[in-house]
Amino acid sequence: VASPPQTEPPFRRIGVVGLGLIGGSVALACRATWTDIHLTGVDRPEIIAAAQADGLINDSCATAAELADHDLVVLATPVLAILEALPALAAAGTRAVVTDVGSTKRRIVAAAHEAGLRSFVGGHPMAGAEHSGLAHARADLFSARRWLLTPVDGDEANAERLTRFVSALGAVPYRMSADAHDRAVARVSHLPQVLSVALMNAAAIGDGRAHWMAAGPAFTEMTRLAASAADTWAGILATNADYIADALEELKANLPADAQALLLGDWTASAFRRAAEARAALTAATAH
Amino acid sequence: VASPPQTEPPFRRIGVVGLGLIGGSVALACRATWTDIHLTGVDRPEIIAAAQADGLINDSCATAAELADHDLVVLATPVLAILEALPALAAAGTRAVVTDVGSTKRRIVAAAHEAGLRSFVGGHPMAGAEHSGLAHARADLFSARRWLLTPVDGDEANAERLTRFVSALGAVPYRMSADAHDRAVARVSHLPQVLSVALMNAAAIGDGRAHWMAAGPAFTEMTRLAASAADTWAGILATNADYIADALEELKANLPADAQALLLGDWTASAFRRAAEARAALTAATAH
Repeated sequence: VASPPQTEPPFRRIGVVGLGLIGGSVALACRATWTDIHLTGVDRPEIIAAAQADGLINDSCATAAELADHDLVVLATPVLAILEALPALAAAGTRAVVTDVGSTKRRIVAAAHEAGLRSFVGGHPMAGAEHSGLAHARADLFSARRWLLTPVDGDEANAERLTRFVSALGAVPYRMSADAHDRAVARVSHLPQVLSVALMNAAAIGDGRAHWMAAGPAFTEMTRLAASAADTWAGILATNADYIADALEELKANLPADAQALLLGDWTASAFRRAAEARAALTAATAH
Repeated sequence: VASPPQTEPPFRRIGVVGLGLIGGSVALACRATWTDIHLTGVDRPEIIAAAQADGLINDSCATAAELADHDLVVLATPVLAILEALPALAAAGTRAVVTDVGSTKRRIVAAAHEAGLRSFVGGHPMAGAEHSGLAHARADLFSARRWLLTPVDGDEANAERLTRFVSALGAVPYRMSADAHDRAVARVSHLPQVLSVALMNAAAIGDGRAHWMAAGPAFTEMTRLAASAADTWAGILATNADYIADALEELKANLPADAQALLLGDWTASAFRRAAEARAALTAATAH
């Protein structure tokens, strides 16, 4: 699925703020795709040292604002840090196209607009892994994964360059509004995360030993997300709280009303049938 | 983890009722463990024909009741069919030890008692797979998996023979009461199943196309169970409805109360911390 090496990269001087799993993988994928680019990293000194030792970055600086003269700035930190970087980049009079990989988009797109950062186009690669950090970054992390872009009116030229950029990294670009994005991820990402945590905590009530002895692979799978870092998720959940609350109400409305609904089997018959249909639609929509 | 071949099988004439994923794997594991046993299968004619063509079974009969002269009868059908087979086996004056692999235990243990089937010991292997049916059965399906047994007073000799039997198939036997079993699986198996179905249906509300485009590996994982067969689950959920309803209340109590709880981050901080602790306890309890 990955594109062949390109002689003309859409951006030549690229700054990546946050060299974690996603930012590190962006840098690795850039290196694997183009020989003729300059990569600048922004992160803590020990991360910068590791990235330089690997030959991943050409240069480093202390803050996102110092990347104002680059062609592209990719903000790959947690959501709350992205919100802080946007006004700093605007104040520095950046001429770079700025994008981010944050998990929510309304607040970030609004913050860029409020800061007067006209060259900003929001992004969100649908890639992740159980492990975070530069050590787990991979050049092929985005291969065949959708990369959502949320341009607004007037962003067309920058959105088109970013579309070429993420396509070259192997991703499948898909555009939607920041509002549609946040409604969607509330249901397919944030609600699953909240449920996994709540399920883990509900299962811990009572005779833990007996519960764990009865736990099979399905429980392990359904609670894998419950091991996620609270620090990362606090900003995501806080910036999408309204749509997540809506999704939680829809979830509750889709649960069996009481024991009687399970006893008589009416919930089971209809809910399983609808779920099978929805899952088939998901599979059809996401098939390559 | 599998035991070495045994010269003395705890049971020599074994009947398996239902040659699906679990029953078929029991038969395959018996064949792989002992050369000197006689296996009789009960299933639909086309399944019996396939099992005989593979040399999996020595013999077949039409109903569980015809296995009354065997040493062991393993009931490996859905829960409601197990409930029907128990009085039939009792009426046939069975001398066999009878066990089952059903996903709930209170109703089944009670039904065996009411039928006067004194040689019954309930069981539940913690094994399964995405795919059902004899074609997916494997001799090593139970390898290093817990196999829960729910003996009652007076069952000690039969429980001990069954313990040797499931250990020889590679499983890790663990005893608990039928009540403790059903409380545990309500939380670690039935609640996850119900949540997966409800999550799939809640995510399908609204702009399905946008939702599916934003769905990543985590959503696919959290809704994998939603593709399960309603027929199998109807009996499981119906025979454990009270404890599942309790687990659903506990789940709801562990969800964020409203958008404000997510906005301020107080739910996130405490729920993620408790979930991480519970998951560590699960990992520690189930480590081999």
